[in-house]
Parts: sequence; C-alpha cells; structure tokens
Amino acid sequence: MSTTVTATCGLSWEEGMRSRLQVRDFTPMVADEPAALGGTDKGPNPIEYLMGSLSSCVSVMIGIVGVELGFKHAGVALDAAGDLDVRGLMGDPQAGRHFTGVRLEVRLSTDESAERLAQLQQKVEARCPMVDLFRAAGVPVTSTWSRA
Amino acid sequence: MSTTVTATCGLSWEEGMRSRLQVRDFTPMVADEPAALGGTDKGPNPIEYLMGSLSSCVSVMIGIVGVELGFKHAGVALDAAGDLDVRGLMGDPQAGRHFTGVRLEVRLSTDESAERLAQLQQKVEARCPMVDLFRAAGVPVTSTWSRA
Repeated sequence: MSTTVTATCGLSWEEGMRSRLQVRDFTPMVADEPAALGGTDKGPNPIEYLMGSLSSCVSVMIGIVGVELGFKHAGVALDAAGDLDVRGLMGDPQAGRHFTGVRLEVRLSTDESAERLAQLQQKVEARCPMVDLFRAAGVPVTSTWSRA
Repeated sequence: MSTTVTATCGLSWEEGMRSRLQVRDFTPMVADEPAALGGTDKGPNPIEYLMGSLSSCVSVMIGIVGVELGFKHAGVALDAAGDLDVRGLMGDPQAGRHFTGVRLEVRLSTDESAERLAQLQQKVEARCPMVDLFRAAGVPVTSTWSRA
C-alpha cells in the first residue's frame, strides 16, 4: 500500500481577488480578500483557508493520537491564528519571512489529567503535518492546551 | 499602518475526523477525511484546504503582480496538488518530511508573449507567501505556466 496521499484543488478566477475553489465533487468554495485588501469579501482569504487547514489537521491528529492513548474527551474547540507580514508579497525585497507566527488555542472537554493532556499535546504537535510545515519553515508555533 | 495581517479560524469538533470550520461570519465549512482514512467524507480534508490556500494565494498574487506589470489576461485556471507521506503522522519516527512535493499548473487566457508570462511567473512565485512557506520548509514546488 502506498504511504503517499495526494490532495488536489482546482481554481478558476472570477474577478479581482476572487476565485472559485473546487475539491473533488464538493460544493465549490469562494476565496476572496476583504475590501481593505482590494477584494469583494465574498469568502475567506487564502490565509484563512490555511488556518482552516491547520486547525482541522490538529483536530484529525487529536482523533488519531487520542485513540492510541485511550484519551477520552467529549469535545474539542480550537482557534488558529496566523500573522502574515505583507511587505514581501507587496514586493519589498528587504522583507523577511512572510509568516511571522502561528498560534493555537486548544480546549478539550475531558476528565483526563493535566499530565495526560500534556502527553496528548506533545504527540499531536510532534506528528501533525501542518505544525511541522510551519516549524520546518522557521515559523514559530505557540500553543495553549486546556481542559474544560 | 501595520504591515501585519492576522487571519483566524475557529474549529469545533463534530465526530471522528469531522469538524466545523468558522472564518469570520462566513458560512461554516466542513473538514473531514475520506472513508479510507477513517472519516465520513462530508467535506475536504485538511490537505485539500491547504491546496485551496495555495491556489488562491497564487491567484491573488497573479492579480497584484499582473497590475504592476500591466499583464492583460481574460482568465486564470489553476490546479494545485500536494503529496503527503502519511507515515510520520501515523507515528513512524523514521519517516522524513510529511510533504514530499507540491505541483502547480497555471493556465492563463492571454495574448501576452511567452517572455511576459515567464516574467509574471517569476515574480508571482518569488513573492507568494504560500509558495515561500513550502520552499522554506524544504518542500519542492514545481510548476508549469501556459497560455491558452
């Protein structure tokens, strides 16, 4: 069995900053930019989709690692935030890294101990492809994990 | 004026591999995994959202750089594909980088010359935050740009 999974997305440009995204046969999604960035604000922007990717990747990893550890929980809520320095994309050759930091706030509804939560966090963050992508690119990823 | 833009996404877990993504007040999006990966296939998976982010980021950059260069086109179609080696996320400590390659196929409807297209491609790929993220992480990004 192959160990590689390939994901694809098709895009067709609509106008200005707006485009239509097509993944398999799911309902098309709109990507746009807010008016302040020159768009018509009809959908999330590319960096918001990136935060959706990061947060859902962490959620999937909580599922996989949670089963391995027998970690019981009744719910997960998560917020992902990413900071983008826009000078580089605007053409400033002196600008450094585009992404300057990523933050995760993870809240689990669970009766498990703080030690078990720390174990879950360690394994999820060590194995999550999206957390790894940012870290490998030199983008600091900070996180807080809490129980409720 | 600040040169940093912050993007956020909230997530609430639904069941198994499935979660709901919330960006500002847009319609919530579903993230899931195909049945083969243990999910219910109710929406794109995290890596498909990542490809949506990459393709829409390239599209926005074509808009910005296109205006700078006075590059005229009537349409953009784009396909993004990313390869993920799943051994690392499954816990194999010997696995290397999760993402092993990213491919872009960009098609522009334009009467501009091949030289002008190459100039657009060079500037877009040099300045696109998502292309930079992969390259900085050591993930090869290959692309073909064509005119139709």
